[in-house]
Order: sequence, then structure tokens, then C-alpha cells
Amino acid sequence: MNNFTFSYPTKVYFGKNAAADYLPTELAKYGDTVMLAFGGGSIKSNGIYDEITAILKNAGKTVIEFSGIMSNPTYAKVQQGAGLVREKGVDFILAVGGGSVIDCCKIISAQAKLDCDIWDMELNQRKIPTEFIPMGAIVTVSGTGSEMNSGAVITNEEKKIKCGLVGASASFAILDPEYTMTVPMKQVISGAFDTLSHAMETYFGKPDSNNLSDDINEAVMRSVIVNIRILLKEPQDYNARSELMWASAMAENGILKIGKITDFQAHQIEHQLGAYTDCNHGQGLAVIHPVLYRHIYKSGAARFARFARNVWGISDKNTEEETALAGINALADFIKEIGMPTTFAEMGIGENVDLKAVAQSTNITAGCCKKLTAEEILEILNECK
Amino acid sequence: MNNFTFSYPTKVYFGKNAAADYLPTELAKYGDTVMLAFGGGSIKSNGIYDEITAILKNAGKTVIEFSGIMSNPTYAKVQQGAGLVREKGVDFILAVGGGSVIDCCKIISAQAKLDCDIWDMELNQRKIPTEFIPMGAIVTVSGTGSEMNSGAVITNEEKKIKCGLVGASASFAILDPEYTMTVPMKQVISGAFDTLSHAMETYFGKPDSNNLSDDINEAVMRSVIVNIRILLKEPQDYNARSELMWASAMAENGILKIGKITDFQAHQIEHQLGAYTDCNHGQGLAVIHPVLYRHIYKSGAARFARFARNVWGISDKNTEEETALAGINALADFIKEIGMPTTFAEMGIGENVDLKAVAQSTNITAGCCKKLTAEEILEILNECK
Repeated sequence: MNNFTFSYPTKVYFGKNAAADYLPTELAKYGDTVMLAFGGGSIKSNGIYDEITAILKNAGKTVIEFSGIMSNPTYAKVQQGAGLVREKGVDFILAVGGGSVIDCCKIISAQAKLDCDIWDMELNQRKIPTEFIPMGAIVTVSGTGSEMNSGAVITNEEKKIKCGLVGASASFAILDPEYTMTVPMKQVISGAFDTLSHAMETYFGKPDSNNLSDDINEAVMRSVIVNIRILLKEPQDYNARSELMWASAMAENGILKIGKITDFQAHQIEHQLGAYTDCNHGQGLAVIHPVLYRHIYKSGAARFARFARNVWGISDKNTEEETALAGINALADFIKEIGMPTTFAEMGIGENVDLKAVAQSTNITAGCCKKLTAEEILEILNECK
Repeated sequence: MNNFTFSYPTKVYFGKNAAADYLPTELAKYGDTVMLAFGGGSIKSNGIYDEITAILKNAGKTVIEFSGIMSNPTYAKVQQGAGLVREKGVDFILAVGGGSVIDCCKIISAQAKLDCDIWDMELNQRKIPTEFIPMGAIVTVSGTGSEMNSGAVITNEEKKIKCGLVGASASFAILDPEYTMTVPMKQVISGAFDTLSHAMETYFGKPDSNNLSDDINEAVMRSVIVNIRILLKEPQDYNARSELMWASAMAENGILKIGKITDFQAHQIEHQLGAYTDCNHGQGLAVIHPVLYRHIYKSGAARFARFARNVWGISDKNTEEETALAGINALADFIKEIGMPTTFAEMGIGENVDLKAVAQSTNITAGCCKKLTAEEILEILNECK
């Protein structure tokens, strides 16, 4: 086990009625002016908005609404939110939504306390923020695991960069699987695939040796696969939804990453694809993963063979490389089985997208068995078409 | 997944040189008078005492030593420690040792802030403490996982009760696997079996259904088994020691218990055996587990069969009960293989011990497949002889 430091700042309230049971106590810890942040308004049709605003009202809070946070939240939206926080003297930010809403609020929480531009500060000056407007998260769509860490993915439309920034961690997160019941199945599956991707990107990071984090990771991956299959047969299965919701958090709360240097190369490629196309994150990952893995598996055949055996239940073939490839094929088959796209064309990404620009702007990681070049990333992107 | 609330208050610094790298920064957060608590003095012969006292001295701390904490820490020792904290105006308690030292300090941290008797308050009035002298933990022997939660096991010699109390959580825990290198192998294995026991006692708790916590638990159990075997061949294997150290923490930091009602019946029986004999905790568990499981497995054959398949790699037999029994036999064989005792006689527990009194004073849990009676516990204890 490599050296590590681990702390876990977010208190999690998980289960049916968690908002009614715990939100009032949490709200009492913060000031009176609360920014209620959400996305496109689905929480208004499914009753969550009414429930949360009633709790805020009963707690005597002044509510400032900040809505319309988009699925790939933009830096412009962050600035708009930070301006609102300053203008209204917001004491506490309550993010109600999925990873996009939570990510946007994490960076708003930091930007509102800064005189400088957080993008420039983090990416150019390499400093991370230390002061934040406190925030909480109520998760209505799971997959990103954003509710249990301080990372956030923001799209800078002007610069055509979608990348990770560090912001606030939610002081508390409310995870009620009932809240996900009205989410369209396509979005549920896309989120669950994002969870599987987080687990894979960690699993394929270094080191390869005997490592409890990898053993636990395999359990998370198998659980996600099993519960996606259950949910596709029984979309209202509460238990499967709750398992996926907790797996989403577990994949990104740091436990799987202990002692590991993570890779996240598929995410880096997808982020730049997203910056150029505004595509769905989980779908982009589903297309990229098998193509990326077929490109690199010979450099890490032992680990890919272990993935085949322990995640997909594949018996050893004649060679380690054959076993490894069978695991990647099982992943690709699973992607088809659960109705996710296997090409950019299926995602509606046309020939007009400048894949060369996507490849050249992709951050290259070195945590996996093979460090790619921009040329190889372009090859991978072309194979995804 | 059942409803749950989870927070994780302890910051973990794990790895080589963790004390030198992180203890000074942590100490700076607390007052000047530090109680350095430890056990029988092994830290004086292996150099840890010198290293830690030098760090304390460099930090300008006034050090109050509190030594001689025994392997089953007594309530009298807690009172002695709490008295010393009050007398010297201790600002911070630094526990250096294994679970016994850390447990003792957790309750000292609470008792020092209370006017009343913590034993009476927790066990009779059913109130738990809310104020503590802050404390940190430096782990030198792993197994109990005490460094990452607020539970403590204390023996009240006068009342002949060994039981769990709730005390402080360490604000930080330093886990340096190098610190375990001089621990006698017998004690290392006993601690590792305690970890396996914690995992099993959680795994056999309810519910039995599809549950990520159980999937992760199986990974922890397999990892403990693999790394005990590695260490018996290569006692100085740093990686195996580090894996066992992190597995110990993982088994008791709450992650495996999420959504589960834990059982801990073997621990309850062992605690009372310990109250009457002052026996080694891990050894007591090793003797009790297989006997207890053979007693109850027919009431939970499906779960025991899953344990056989997924932890011990046993193929399905003709019936679920046969598979279940094969798993328990594999556990019993493993206990012999690693040189742990299989009877009370091997532990040096003689015929003169009043097993009836042990049985009658054992707390009966209801988290497992079968709720025992005091008569059944006596049967189990007699079978252990």
C-alpha cells in the first residue's frame, strides 16, 4: 500500500425521507440567506422543489433561487452564481440536483470568496482555494459521486476547455434513492456508467500489486453491473437504485483511490469531446472506454486479464492477452446490452467536429499502463466515429 | 440498501515516516500539555518512544506520561488516566499503541470532562458523552481498527464485565506499517484475526440481500486471508503489513457496516470470556468463531454458503447446507494453518473457569441468523473447551 492521507469531510444522510428527517437540523447550523441552486426545473415537476422549499420556509430561511444550471455547467454560469451570492449576501448554498448542479455550486462557493478569477488562479497560478461559502447537496441524479468530494468539472466555453477544478466539499449530502425514481432510465444508466468509469479509471491506475483498494474496487464494479441489469428489468426497484446511488458515492469518496495513482484518461478525452460538442458525459465515456482499452491493453495485459476474470467472470484463455481482450469485449458487449451508444455517430456527433482539436487539447495522464500521445488520442477518437 | 447516516471524523496519515511528516502540524492545533499514553513499554525498546518524544519536545509540548495500559484495559486504569488529565490540566491526549491503548484513551478523553461516572452514565442511564479532551492516535499494533471510530472496549474488573463504551474519536490517526515490524508474529496474527472477525461479524449481520457493503466486505476478508499467509512466509514484508494495517482500519471505520445491522455475537462471548480470564482477544475469537458458526449455520445456510463460495473459493456441494459447512471448515482449517488456538485448553484456559457465569453474563445480540439463548452460549463455550 502506497502512503496516503485521507479525510472525509461530508456527512451523508442516506435513505427514504432523509431530507425531511435531517435537513432541518443541518440548516439550523448556517445563516438565514440560502441560495437554492438547481437545474432545468425537473425538481418542480417531481415534487422535490416543493418539499425542499417547504423545509427552508419552516426553517425561517430567506431563499434566493439560482436555476438553469446546465448539464455541462459553464464557467459563465459559475460567475453568474458567484455574483448572485455576493449581491444577496448568501450564507449557505443548497445544491439540489446531480453532479452538474453540485459541481457548479462547489466552484461558486469558492469564487464568491475570491477577488481573483478562480480559473486563472487554479490552472495558471496552480493555487487552490481555501475559503468557501458553506454548502450542502441534495442528490436527485447519481453517477458523478460529486456529493462526497471537492472536485468539480466546469466547461469554459470561451477557451473550449472542460476540466476539473477544486472547490468546496459539501458539509452534508442527502441521498434519497426515491428522488431518482422519476429520472428517465437513459439518464440513470448514463450516470451509472459514469460510476463504472470512475471505478475503472482508478482500477487501471498504478500500482498493479496486491492492494485492498483494487479488491474493493472490483466489488464496486460488479455491484454496478448487477444493479444496472436489475434496474433495466425493474425500473422502479428501490434497492437497485439505492445500491447504484451508494456505489456512485463510493467510487468518488476517496476509498477506492487509497494508495493508487489514478488514471482518468478516458475522462480527459471525454471532457474535451464535451468541450467541443456539449455531449452527454456518460455516453461519451461508454464510446471511448472500449476503444481506449483496445489501444492500450497489451501494455498492461496482466491487469486487463485480472479485470476480465474478477469483474466479468471470464476464465483464462490461452494467453494473458487473449484473456485481457475478452474482458474488454465483455465491457463492450455490456455497453450494447444496456442500450448505450458505441459510436460518436450514435450520439449524434457529426463529421464536422474537429477531432484533431479535441485530441490536441486533451490533458494526457500518466497513471495507466501506457502514456498516450496526442496522435494516439486522435487515432482513438477516429476509431470512435 | 437500508437507510444510514455516515460521517468520518478521523484524518488518516498512512505510510512510512508519517509521524515525522505529519505529527508536528497536527500537534500545533492543540494546547501545550500533552498526555503521552502507552502500554507496557515496547515502544521504548523499538525506538518509537524516542521518535515521538523528540517530536513532542521540538513542538514545545509539556509531556505527561501515562504508561502501563494493559492489553484488556480496565475501568480502574481509565479512572487513573482521567484523574491525571484533570490534575495536570492536559490539553491533548496522544495514544501510542494498539487498540487497548487507544480504547483506554477514548474513555479517558470522555471521563475527564464528566462529573459523573461514565460507566453508570452509558450503561445504566443510556446517555453517551458529547464533550472530550481532544486526542490523536499513533498505531503500533493493528487489528482492532479502534483508530477510526469512537467505540472502546473496557473491562470492569469489579463487575466482571468487559464491554463496549462510546468515547472520543481520534482527530487524527498515524498509521506507519514500519511501526509494526517489531511486533511478535503471534500478536500480529492475533490482531489480523480480530480484523477478520470484525468483517465476519458485520457480514453475517442482516440484511442478507444484494448489498454493496457485503461485496466490499468479502474483498476485505479475502485480503486479510491472503496477507496473513504472505506474512507468515515473509514476516518483514512491508506491503503485507501495510495491507493488514489498512484492512484493520477499513473493517471498523464504518464503511462495511453501511446499511447493515451488525451481529458481533462472537465478540460478545469473547468479551465475557476475557472478563473472567483476561485472555488474548484474537485467540478467544479464533476458538469461538467456528464453534459458534457450526451451531447456527443451518438457520442462515444461504449466507454461510455465500461465505464459503466468495471468501474461501469453495464450489457448490450437493446442498446449500453442505456448502455452508465446508466454508466453516475452511475457516477452522485456516485458524489451524496460521497457528492460532482451536480450543480454550490451548489458550491456557483451565477447567476452573466458570463458563456458566460467562454465558449468563454475555450480551445476546439479534443481528445474525439466529438469536442465541444463554443455554446455547454455554453449550458453545463447553464445545470450545
